[in-house]
Amino acid sequence: MADIPPATVKRIGFIGLGNMGLPMANNLYKGFKDSADFIVFDVNQTVTSNFLKEHNTDPANPDKVKIAKSPLEVAKEATVVVTMLPASQHVQSVYFGQDGLLEGLTDKHVVVDASTIDQSVAKKVADVLHAKGVKALDAPVSGGTGGAQAGTLTFMVGSRTTEDFDLAKPYLEKMGKNIVYCGTNGNGQVAKICNNMLLGISMIATSETMNLGVRMGMDPKLLAGILNTSSGRCWSSEVYNPCPGVLENSAASRGYTGGFGTPLMAKDMRLAVNAAVETRSTVLLGALAQQLYNQMANNKEFEKLDFSAAYKWLSEGSK
Amino acid sequence: MADIPPATVKRIGFIGLGNMGLPMANNLYKGFKDSADFIVFDVNQTVTSNFLKEHNTDPANPDKVKIAKSPLEVAKEATVVVTMLPASQHVQSVYFGQDGLLEGLTDKHVVVDASTIDQSVAKKVADVLHAKGVKALDAPVSGGTGGAQAGTLTFMVGSRTTEDFDLAKPYLEKMGKNIVYCGTNGNGQVAKICNNMLLGISMIATSETMNLGVRMGMDPKLLAGILNTSSGRCWSSEVYNPCPGVLENSAASRGYTGGFGTPLMAKDMRLAVNAAVETRSTVLLGALAQQLYNQMANNKEFEKLDFSAAYKWLSEGSK
Amino acid sequence: MADIPPATVKRIGFIGLGNMGLPMANNLYKGFKDSADFIVFDVNQTVTSNFLKEHNTDPANPDKVKIAKSPLEVAKEATVVVTMLPASQHVQSVYFGQDGLLEGLTDKHVVVDASTIDQSVAKKVADVLHAKGVKALDAPVSGGTGGAQAGTLTFMVGSRTTEDFDLAKPYLEKMGKNIVYCGTNGNGQVAKICNNMLLGISMIATSETMNLGVRMGMDPKLLAGILNTSSGRCWSSEVYNPCPGVLENSAASRGYTGGFGTPLMAKDMRLAVNAAVETRSTVLLGALAQQLYNQMANNKEFEKLDFSAAYKWLSEGSK
Amino acid sequence: MADIPPATVKRIGFIGLGNMGLPMANNLYKGFKDSADFIVFDVNQTVTSNFLKEHNTDPANPDKVKIAKSPLEVAKEATVVVTMLPASQHVQSVYFGQDGLLEGLTDKHVVVDASTIDQSVAKKVADVLHAKGVKALDAPVSGGTGGAQAGTLTFMVGSRTTEDFDLAKPYLEKMGKNIVYCGTNGNGQVAKICNNMLLGISMIATSETMNLGVRMGMDPKLLAGILNTSSGRCWSSEVYNPCPGVLENSAASRGYTGGFGTPLMAKDMRLAVNAAVETRSTVLLGALAQQLYNQMANNKEFEKLDFSAAYKWLSEGSK
Repeated sequence: MADIPPATVKRIGFIGLGNMGLPMANNLYKGFKDSADFIVFDVNQTVTSNFLKEHNTDPANPDKVKIAKSPLEVAKEATVVVTMLPASQHVQSVYFGQDGLLEGLTDKHVVVDASTIDQSVAKKVADVLHAKGVKALDAPVSGGTGGAQAGTLTFMVGSRTTEDFDLAKPYLEKMGKNIVYCGTNGNGQVAKICNNMLLGISMIATSETMNLGVRMGMDPKLLAGILNTSSGRCWSSEVYNPCPGVLENSAASRGYTGGFGTPLMAKDMRLAVNAAVETRSTVLLGALAQQLYNQMANNKEFEKLDFSAAYKWLSEGSK
Repeated sequence: MADIPPATVKRIGFIGLGNMGLPMANNLYKGFKDSADFIVFDVNQTVTSNFLKEHNTDPANPDKVKIAKSPLEVAKEATVVVTMLPASQHVQSVYFGQDGLLEGLTDKHVVVDASTIDQSVAKKVADVLHAKGVKALDAPVSGGTGGAQAGTLTFMVGSRTTEDFDLAKPYLEKMGKNIVYCGTNGNGQVAKICNNMLLGISMIATSETMNLGVRMGMDPKLLAGILNTSSGRCWSSEVYNPCPGVLENSAASRGYTGGFGTPLMAKDMRLAVNAAVETRSTVLLGALAQQLYNQMANNKEFEKLDFSAAYKWLSEGSK
Repeated sequence: MADIPPATVKRIGFIGLGNMGLPMANNLYKGFKDSADFIVFDVNQTVTSNFLKEHNTDPANPDKVKIAKSPLEVAKEATVVVTMLPASQHVQSVYFGQDGLLEGLTDKHVVVDASTIDQSVAKKVADVLHAKGVKALDAPVSGGTGGAQAGTLTFMVGSRTTEDFDLAKPYLEKMGKNIVYCGTNGNGQVAKICNNMLLGISMIATSETMNLGVRMGMDPKLLAGILNTSSGRCWSSEVYNPCPGVLENSAASRGYTGGFGTPLMAKDMRLAVNAAVETRSTVLLGALAQQLYNQMANNKEFEKLDFSAAYKWLSEGSK
Repeated sequence: MADIPPATVKRIGFIGLGNMGLPMANNLYKGFKDSADFIVFDVNQTVTSNFLKEHNTDPANPDKVKIAKSPLEVAKEATVVVTMLPASQHVQSVYFGQDGLLEGLTDKHVVVDASTIDQSVAKKVADVLHAKGVKALDAPVSGGTGGAQAGTLTFMVGSRTTEDFDLAKPYLEKMGKNIVYCGTNGNGQVAKICNNMLLGISMIATSETMNLGVRMGMDPKLLAGILNTSSGRCWSSEVYNPCPGVLENSAASRGYTGGFGTPLMAKDMRLAVNAAVETRSTVLLGALAQQLYNQMANNKEFEKLDFSAAYKWLSEGSK
């Protein structure tokens, strides 16, 4: 990883400052602000100007943080670029569209796409960038907005070589706790899709279980404590319990606001069900859970809520 | 908890030496053999005589371990009794049947039923025993046969008072790692039912996920490692992964032999679905998972396998 | 069937004038009012006095229709008795409770229970009545309140002999279109449970299908017409289409009021899921559909609606 | 419909002589052999030469039936063309590929595609053909191979105008019983997808119901008879009962051979689940049923069987 040690990087670029991207960019900034400047791009100019206001506070260096007019400008000014976008079509336009990244990328660039997209698109992006000598990696994340803010995300990284992986790792480590090498380009997406299918099912299962136990007369905190020291234990019961009051800082304890929205989970589980068909795999619980998130995502109230609102969906059915 | 310190207990009784009961009795024996003698009962005389052969090895004390002819005999000889039985009807006959425990119990006895049964039966047993001054507790377990052998079970304990709980705790601690006070008699069953419903769903979800990832080209150990550091993490993926080869000592890696059989999971999830109806709760994934275990439990091959054979059930469907 | 030809029956009794029972009693009255008098009983005295007001209009015969103070009084005055009750416990109290039918029944009586109850209870009632020489039959119905009003119900009849069946048939024919001999006592319940499980699944399936087609741009009447001449055809699409406007007189076209309530369907499908467990049968769609009706039956709005409101439940989820 | 009365059609073309296409072509031939000659094309030359052997039996007219070397040749020789192909990609290559239909089509042609494909592809084919003045219709069918052989299929027809519909109708009437106008091009596919989703769910529901009833002790023929006169009635219970022995000529009574294979049903239900996502519709039972057919379609034994083998799948699980 010697040829681009972080120390020699003059400017770092970040594209996509959404619910996930913004806190990731903040952590990346905190981690490298002493050694590098920044440039950011987002179609939503409010978030970029807020980013500027918050971080561009050094009178001695008025260009410490810059806002780019296009992905191309990011490529021209930064040698390390991270992108965090909603879906396959956004990735394609940011990389291959007019004034897109591709035009400005060279064999001096390290580019990491942290978006969750189809494995096929991730492979295509990597192939095109590799042809120009760019070090390209796909690194979708898990951990939700909480993990993004705490810098404890897990990155599932697909890269052509372990050298490319080592090059990107120092940057990912500022935004995440676990940086996992998943093999060749595209495998990061496989890991992400599998993780989120299991997460999506577990959250509904935890919601059904907490709702049942509470109705049977157990105290929810006591029940959660028991599950979390038993074989029912899962991330959804321990770290993100969907029952209000069990965890102080959970989405459930703030009315299911913020967090990982039901439409995002419906989208990720949809990718999983598609992948199941393509690989002739059977996902009985996966397909049912996908429909349930789809149902919530299409409901005026629940489309705005965190995916752990599955608990509210189930328990309020009986109000 | 002073009135029956373990030191003053002359003989400990254990009823029900099945897949779970036998290793539990072995651990209880190891823990108290220096301070107390034992008496055991089971309808299967082979297991009791094996228990005798293995432990009754002190020529200076030929009665160190005795085999009882009936539950009543256990009550007459032991002051602390643990029962571990398959279902509600067995509990009722062992406690209330002819030559049953009840006839011999007094206000000097501490009795713990570790069986998984209906909440209503557990409450009835407790009421009848309390009327005779017996300290009665319900303490169903989780952790499977592996936890029973390692002495790392979780006991979910319902008891009339915390004093009764403190009295029983020293004995449970020899068989388990987590001894959890769940409140009044019967609540142990609530905790158990909820835990196993969540476990049963998680295992199928983990099986669907591992099967999908493997078919998408990921190495199963690598995938499991990623899930276990991400939000998809659950006991089934970490401790009991259903994909052969991922964990050396898992049921999956020994052909799904031993462990927690599909009929037992089908039974526990059935208790959960029943409880859901009684409490007007909705368990969409729970009801579907119950049917899938029911389907396996009624299949000549899978009825003999560990519940993690859900992976085999799903993946072989595509052979 | 010669020993009690309808002509010799002086008074006919009917117990249970609910949503189903009342229109059935009205049709039975219309069919025999020229040859027999009537006596009715219901815990709800409003419905019995309304029945009296409507039918007891012959000044020459002021006792044409009587209201009984108890089931026993019905047995004493009538030789043919039909009962239509909500569940097993009501049947047991009406037949075996204080001032119950049993006390007054003789070998001159023909008694038909049209309630939907557990097969075991139906068998017990038949055994006890047979012991007194009573001709006892179980004859649960299908067809809903529409069929009850139109006299087009299907009776699924369990009886000890075909002679008993022939004896009851003339009465059932006034209330239904299809009187089906299902074999020995209790088999009527089997047929009913199976029919309603299939009905309950078909109604949700039809709702999902109509909702999908409408969202894809098809006219609902045209789509229903196509389904009804194709292999997707079912009673729910043809006779009871859940999409408002497709059928003029459907529950859907009157705001899902009246008809067969979601709690009743949840109850019948619950009997089916129980029967599946007892017979080691797998009902994957049945168990899921049961949970969905359970969810509706526990919702303040949907608990009051016809079971075809499954369409409203699905389609409004996306409003 | 005057401009191309069947009488003036000199040669009729048929492309795709598979399980469905062959019996359809046979019926079309029987219907018009007195007024027109034929030309057929299939990549499988065995089926085309068999078709020739069977029908080209008039020594006075050795060219009565011809085998085309390409779709283009069919377009050049016939003015009415019917295509029956497996999936979207085959339709695109037959119409738009090298030596494809398009090259030879003129404003004198009437072309009916009876394949079941994506609505979007059906619309594209129609647009391109309309631009050349061709009368183009999409007319997917239901009724299975039995209906294809008996000439009792239902055609769900999408066409630009009712005039086009009237033009094609005489030909479709030789192959089907119900020729249904579904509106504009593409709507035929909507009707087909909706019908088959409802069919697929109903077949599994009927299988679960028949299996449950038989295990509860009912005679299968008697149970089917009851369902078919009750509200559980559906095409799967009446016309295609999945329980062996209930109907003499059902697939179930011949070991589930022939008929509509599980992979075909899995494919059609997959189209339905995709359409549900695109239209933000919820299909809970649909998604579960799709997974179950997917499971059967990926099983070495069941991939070869008719979709009514769902009964065998469920009932043998308990052998």
